[in-house]
Formats: sequence, C-alpha cells, structure tokens
Amino acid sequence: MHGFIDEKQGEPQKVSLLSFLYLLNAMQVKATHRIKHGFTICVRSFLPVGAGLGSSASYSVVMATGLLILSGLIPADFNTSPERDQYLDMINSYAFRAEQVIHGNPSGVDNAVCTYGGAKTFVRGQGFSTLEGFQSVRLLLTNTKVPRSTNALVASAGQKKEKYPQIMNPILDAMDGISVRCRDAFKGLALGEITEKELMQELGDLVVLNHCLLDAIGVSHPSLEKVKSITSESGLKTKLTGAGGGGCAVSLIPSGGVGANAISLTDNENESWLLDLSREEIQKYL
Amino acid sequence: MHGFIDEKQGEPQKVSLLSFLYLLNAMQVKATHRIKHGFTICVRSFLPVGAGLGSSASYSVVMATGLLILSGLIPADFNTSPERDQYLDMINSYAFRAEQVIHGNPSGVDNAVCTYGGAKTFVRGQGFSTLEGFQSVRLLLTNTKVPRSTNALVASAGQKKEKYPQIMNPILDAMDGISVRCRDAFKGLALGEITEKELMQELGDLVVLNHCLLDAIGVSHPSLEKVKSITSESGLKTKLTGAGGGGCAVSLIPSGGVGANAISLTDNENESWLLDLSREEIQKYL
Repeated sequence: MHGFIDEKQGEPQKVSLLSFLYLLNAMQVKATHRIKHGFTICVRSFLPVGAGLGSSASYSVVMATGLLILSGLIPADFNTSPERDQYLDMINSYAFRAEQVIHGNPSGVDNAVCTYGGAKTFVRGQGFSTLEGFQSVRLLLTNTKVPRSTNALVASAGQKKEKYPQIMNPILDAMDGISVRCRDAFKGLALGEITEKELMQELGDLVVLNHCLLDAIGVSHPSLEKVKSITSESGLKTKLTGAGGGGCAVSLIPSGGVGANAISLTDNENESWLLDLSREEIQKYL
Repeated sequence: MHGFIDEKQGEPQKVSLLSFLYLLNAMQVKATHRIKHGFTICVRSFLPVGAGLGSSASYSVVMATGLLILSGLIPADFNTSPERDQYLDMINSYAFRAEQVIHGNPSGVDNAVCTYGGAKTFVRGQGFSTLEGFQSVRLLLTNTKVPRSTNALVASAGQKKEKYPQIMNPILDAMDGISVRCRDAFKGLALGEITEKELMQELGDLVVLNHCLLDAIGVSHPSLEKVKSITSESGLKTKLTGAGGGGCAVSLIPSGGVGANAISLTDNENESWLLDLSREEIQKYL
C-alpha cells in the first residue's frame, strides 16, 4: 500500500492517502457491488489541518461515508432512512479505523462527534456519552499557526509522568476533576440547579484551571501563552485545544459579551474565527 | 497602642510601627533594666517592601535583636557568645510575634531564615528544618512593582478550594510533591546520588511546574506572566515568589549559564537583581 504514497508529499497528505486506501480495501472485501471503474474524489477542508481541530476525524468520516455509499454498503439517502442509527454506527466504526491509520491510538471521540454531532464526554475505557444539558457555547478560535507534533508532546508529558509521579499524578487527577465538574455544570443547567450565568462563570474557571495544568505538564507554547495573555486583557478565558505545543487556542465568549470585532486576533501571526457551537448551528451541517 | 499610629501613613509604615511598639512593650515586662531615656531607631531597607521578599521578617528580626540588647535581655556580643543558639531562639521567638502583628498568620519560616540563615524547608504543623545539601543557587530576582494584597490573594484561593475541592486538592497535593522532590534533590546532591547538572535540571522542572500550579490557583498576574515569558526566551525557568499577584519573580540561573547583563530585566516596568544565594554569601551578612 505504501507504493501509492509519494514520499515527497507532506505528512498530512501521506496519512490521508494511506487512510483512504485502507478504507477502500477494507470495504471492498464486504462490498455488495465491487467498484470496477476509476473515480475522482475531491476533498476540500475549511478546517486548518494539524491544528488540533479534529480535521483528520472530519476527513475520516466523510471519506468513510462516501466510500460506504460507493461500495453499496449504505444507501445514499441513509440520513433519512429508518436504519439511520445503524448506518451512523457503521460510518463511525470505519472512520475510527481511518483515524487509527492516521494517529495510531486515537480516543475515538473526534470521529464520534463528527458522525453523530452534539457534544460528547469521553472516558478512556468507558467510551463516550452525550453531554447532557449542552445548549450552546460561543468560542473564539485562534490558530497560532505554530506546527506541532502530537506524538512528541505526548511522549514528553509521558516522560515527565515517569520522572515526577508524585507531582504529575495529582495534576492528572485535577484534570479529571475538571472534566467531571464541566459535565456536572451542564447537567446542573439542564436540571435548573444553576443559571446560565453561573454556568459560564464556572466554565471560565475550569478553562483557566485546565490551561494552567496543561502548561504545567509541558504542552503549552509561547504562542499559546501570548493568545491567552491578549484575550485575558478583554476578560476572556482561554485554553489550548488539541495536543497543544502550538496549534489552536479557544476562548470562551460570554453571552452578550465582547463583540466579535473587538476580540479578533487575526494578524500576521494568528488567524481567528468566532464560532457559535449551538446545537442548532451544528445540526445545519448534518 | 493605636494612638501612636498616624492614620495618614501607608500600611507598611503603620504595621512596622505597631510591631515595634508591641515588641518594646512585651520586652519591657521582662527587661532587666527598663529603658528610661528616649532613643532614635533608624531603619533602612535595601529590600523592596511588600514585594514578597520577606522584608517584614528581616525588619522584625533586626528590631527584635536591637530591642533585646537595649532591654538587657541578650548581650550586644550575643553572636560570639557560647549561648549564641539560645539567644538566636529568643530573637526568633520575638521576631515571630512581630510577624504575627504584621501578617496575622505567618508561617514563621521567613523570620527563621532571617535569624538562623541557610535554606529551610517548612511544613505547617511540623515546623521547619534545614535544607540538607544546599550549597548555592544563582537567581535573577525581578520586581514587577505591581502592588498586591496577600490577604485578598489567599482568600481568593481559599474560595476556589471551597468551590472546586476535587480540582484544588489534587493541585495542592502536586505542590506538596514539588516541595518534597526539591528537598530530596538537594539531599541527593549531598549524598552524591545526582550531579549538580541533574540538580539544576530538576530544579528547573520543579520551578516551571510550581509556577503553573500557582497560576492555576489564581495567584499569578499578567506582569509575572510577562517576566516568565521574557526570561523563557533566554531558556530561564521562572516562578513567582511570595504570595504572588504581582510582587517578585525569581529565575533560576544555570551555573556557567547566561551572563547577568544579557538577562537584566530592569526597564520602566521592572527592576531586577542577580543574586548569589550561596551559603558563603549569606554568612557574610550574619
């Protein structure tokens, strides 16, 4: 399979081609009608690639969906079919295998979000579940454009954990505590136990705590610290996203808060977008 | 006693006068010869006041020493006396009471360092002990000149601990892990288990971890983050010192590392000094 890959191409091109060939091969074994003619696939991404935004999961899901239709394993109108759920499971399962080809050991949460939509919580070993009470969050997404290597960052944090277990283990416990609090805060909003303002206050606290702990374990980057510092001048809480070490930062935008123009960070170094992660907005693209 | 205090004076002036009057009063009860004549005390501080450098402990120790001599409770040549140790204990005990007047609930480690010299470790409830294996550390000390309120910072961290125990408790455990590792690293050097280079590497890691955790619990400040960012460009590891929220930052200078001029941060905003915290340097002033 490696014969198809042009060694002069960049890593994203290589792994995307490799995962495509993997999916094609895996599906052809089970296909009801084998693909006999050549075909052209055109992929365009509006997501920056390799910036911690799950562009590979997005790519894997559309590629799995397209090839499953082409192989006759799911109908083209699967999204309005009564068996929609099981078709989605099949798409998610193939997309996960493509993600494994790309990343080695992905959590599976990125492809799940791309397949099913909505907001998910994930615990390794326990899988993912839908985040209860999630309505909408407005985020400022800033791409520092600093390239990073997820594997190197994960390895470096792993070495720190081995060298300083009595420091790193409690930090990881604190991060787990942050995830649990975040999940409970959304649930609390759904149950009417807290107001939306209290939710935003709590999410802000958790974003700050989370970013500092990520900085502690060594996966931040001067470019991310700069974004954090600039956004904090407007009172925004910012954390790195993805594996860190560059890539993107997300800032929480309070409802009715700062205007988009006032907080745009697009300049020579960074590029930023204002996102509305509401359930309705996401559904539009499904 | 409050009648002596001019309300127009600043807080440092007020509490220093108050602690002086407290010491004078407390000693006169036990004095072998009561002070009958007026006297002038002139205090000059080369330490920035209220910047987290323990200037109050330094003040308390010299004031306790001077007044103990004046009251006939210790001899003027106490430092060369065979009973030196018990005179030092007495000085430390009075200095701690002066610190209580100034701070409310001080740990007692600052006055102990000022009284006995050397480097100390401190565990609340267990008291302090001498840091084994401590030879010397070169530090760059940068005063951000941002005023801060220790009480407000401690209260805010306390509120966070109450609101997010499942996050804050493990962070405090991690900080405890940092202190233990730091103590063990110096001991390791004394026992020849690690080299000085390994010690400096480990201290650097611990300084970074500690600062990030202090930032997480909310006691850093944009001015401190800026010092951290500037010094990190020269590869220096920096943490806040004292209660944070402004005040001073310390950067670890590797032996044979960056020249003092290259890393001076003295500008319109900050003032910095290069310090040699070797046992020999400290003894000079004792």
